[in-house]
Amino acid sequence: MTKHRLEAFSDGVIAIIITIMVLEIKVPHGQDFQALKPLLPIVLSYVLSFIYLAIYWNNHHHMFHTIERVSGSILWANMHLLFWLSLIPFTTGWMGENHFEAAPMALYGVVLFMSAVAYTILQRTLIAKHDHHNLLARAVGKDLKGYASLALYLVAVPSAFIHPIISGCIYIFVALMWLIPDKRIERTLEKDEV
Amino acid sequence: MTKHRLEAFSDGVIAIIITIMVLEIKVPHGQDFQALKPLLPIVLSYVLSFIYLAIYWNNHHHMFHTIERVSGSILWANMHLLFWLSLIPFTTGWMGENHFEAAPMALYGVVLFMSAVAYTILQRTLIAKHDHHNLLARAVGKDLKGYASLALYLVAVPSAFIHPIISGCIYIFVALMWLIPDKRIERTLEKDEV
Amino acid sequence: MTKHRLEAFSDGVIAIIITIMVLEIKVPHGQDFQALKPLLPIVLSYVLSFIYLAIYWNNHHHMFHTIERVSGSILWANMHLLFWLSLIPFTTGWMGENHFEAAPMALYGVVLFMSAVAYTILQRTLIAKHDHHNLLARAVGKDLKGYASLALYLVAVPSAFIHPIISGCIYIFVALMWLIPDKRIERTLEKDEV
Amino acid sequence: MTKHRLEAFSDGVIAIIITIMVLEIKVPHGQDFQALKPLLPIVLSYVLSFIYLAIYWNNHHHMFHTIERVSGSILWANMHLLFWLSLIPFTTGWMGENHFEAAPMALYGVVLFMSAVAYTILQRTLIAKHDHHNLLARAVGKDLKGYASLALYLVAVPSAFIHPIISGCIYIFVALMWLIPDKRIERTLEKDEV
Repeated sequence: MTKHRLEAFSDGVIAIIITIMVLEIKVPHGQDFQALKPLLPIVLSYVLSFIYLAIYWNNHHHMFHTIERVSGSILWANMHLLFWLSLIPFTTGWMGENHFEAAPMALYGVVLFMSAVAYTILQRTLIAKHDHHNLLARAVGKDLKGYASLALYLVAVPSAFIHPIISGCIYIFVALMWLIPDKRIERTLEKDEV
Repeated sequence: MTKHRLEAFSDGVIAIIITIMVLEIKVPHGQDFQALKPLLPIVLSYVLSFIYLAIYWNNHHHMFHTIERVSGSILWANMHLLFWLSLIPFTTGWMGENHFEAAPMALYGVVLFMSAVAYTILQRTLIAKHDHHNLLARAVGKDLKGYASLALYLVAVPSAFIHPIISGCIYIFVALMWLIPDKRIERTLEKDEV
Repeated sequence: MTKHRLEAFSDGVIAIIITIMVLEIKVPHGQDFQALKPLLPIVLSYVLSFIYLAIYWNNHHHMFHTIERVSGSILWANMHLLFWLSLIPFTTGWMGENHFEAAPMALYGVVLFMSAVAYTILQRTLIAKHDHHNLLARAVGKDLKGYASLALYLVAVPSAFIHPIISGCIYIFVALMWLIPDKRIERTLEKDEV
Repeated sequence: MTKHRLEAFSDGVIAIIITIMVLEIKVPHGQDFQALKPLLPIVLSYVLSFIYLAIYWNNHHHMFHTIERVSGSILWANMHLLFWLSLIPFTTGWMGENHFEAAPMALYGVVLFMSAVAYTILQRTLIAKHDHHNLLARAVGKDLKGYASLALYLVAVPSAFIHPIISGCIYIFVALMWLIPDKRIERTLEKDEV
């Protein structure tokens, strides 16, 4: 099977997830800038989650760029990733409405952790279906950045109960770490095309 | 006519259906994990419906992979399927909010049954438009799994009024039965490509 | 410019319009079938609008199938059509919530009329950009069905104030008239390919 | 990397943004035309934002039509644009609900300004990645229309506090200025193809 529809379906789901989060920013009743003040934590959580979903889409794009064909197990590994990503709007809304309290901050980390696990499974499934010398395997390499993120989420979840700000800083740090798109694939790709 | 736009439109509709269900998981007002407790049945129904819609998308993907062209009757058979799938978020929400009571469980089964009927009609329409030796006809064969699902839904609907847990178990059983993507098409396809 | 992105964007918008209408069917608080009774007019309006949007998508699909290239004026004629279609969920909701009262029935007809006008403009723009012997021009011919629909909507709008049921019957009649997809294009197309 | 998925994802996000705005037009409880009266400012803001988003989509379409390949920095410049566009439904809703008061009018201008900045960055990134004689660079030229829009938004934002109607007129004027799709690219393109 070709990868075309899997890409189109994932694009659709991620586009909807990234956009319905904005529905959580409810129109205030007041008509001056004061009325916007209570929305600040909600907007901040929206920005963070927008960046996370943009990172996932970018990396998903890079990853599938390197492969040619999909199988039943790849379809399901991809659905599993989309499931966890689909919970991000809910955890974002809970975190924003409660001004970054401990429990919502921890739950946000749990969903990020599960999304990262699902992404790793999808990546492994893709590599396993192709031979070990292919572009993706070489580009991903030991995947230090991926495992570092998993470890950091595991630290961030319990840290929320010491102080939510610790988790918050970890989430921002991981986002920044990935904000640079996966140059590994881009570079390996360019080398191949030269 | 080519199948490209029918696939793109179906991908869009299923992507939206699978994602708007998450809007039913309303952000709670409390800020500790206790506040999440009443959401548990809603999350469980979401997981079940997510899996059902993922199964439909996967099978839809496999099925259209085998055909080349579409006609007016195929477009309408596909629209009919999308109509019944579009009612899944509503029945999921009603089931989750009422903690799996009898009537919502039965209605959930009715919509699953009608979706399965619509899928069967679409499959028959596709096979009828192509010759009987084509890939889809051979892969589907006697479609025992399809007819078994229809029969099980017919049992599940009235069973909800004996005890909702019977219907629940049947829905989970049917989902598990399909969770393995339609290997028949994948295998027949691989044989052809060798 | 190629038509690919215009088709993809229109598919996306129509897929979202057809799906968000289902959000208007609010999950009831009761847990027996009695609780569903007040939803009946809302579900009926949903079915009618689903069919109308499915007709528009099918005809849009057929129409763009016949052309190769798009221009700036085609992009805008298409946006104009999408604008009127995007108001269908609102008029559907108003009609359903008010049990098919006169004013909502009339407004529903106004939006259907404007959508049909926009579709006719789009069709004229497409034909004007291509030569008069092309497939679309031959398939559309004198477009009796299109002009009949426009006339029927014009009758249906004021009729709502005599009795809403007259408008309702006209809307159902027009839908049935179009439910048969545009065989003219399909047939002309098949002839060409032979 | 090819541009195909970036286009598909952007189409999806813009299609959703343009459509969820319609959810802000809440179904009124009354059943005569009087009940629609309070919705008038909401509908007017919807029309204006629909036109702005249609302009962005059209120009995005024209712009990407001229290029062949995308890079990591283009993906991020595009995400940045989508972020600002995603805030349009919120500012539209606030503006409509408050009958075009000063603060909502100013905020609407801020989001339009940031969207225009993001579009300019994206355009510069695209030109920088391609050589200076390419189609886009020639078509855009000195981009007077782009810089004029930025300047007009900068005037419109503080003007809202003198009288909101001044900002309103500027927003309508800029929209009209762009309503004519980017003929520069279309013309340069046609010349090339001849």
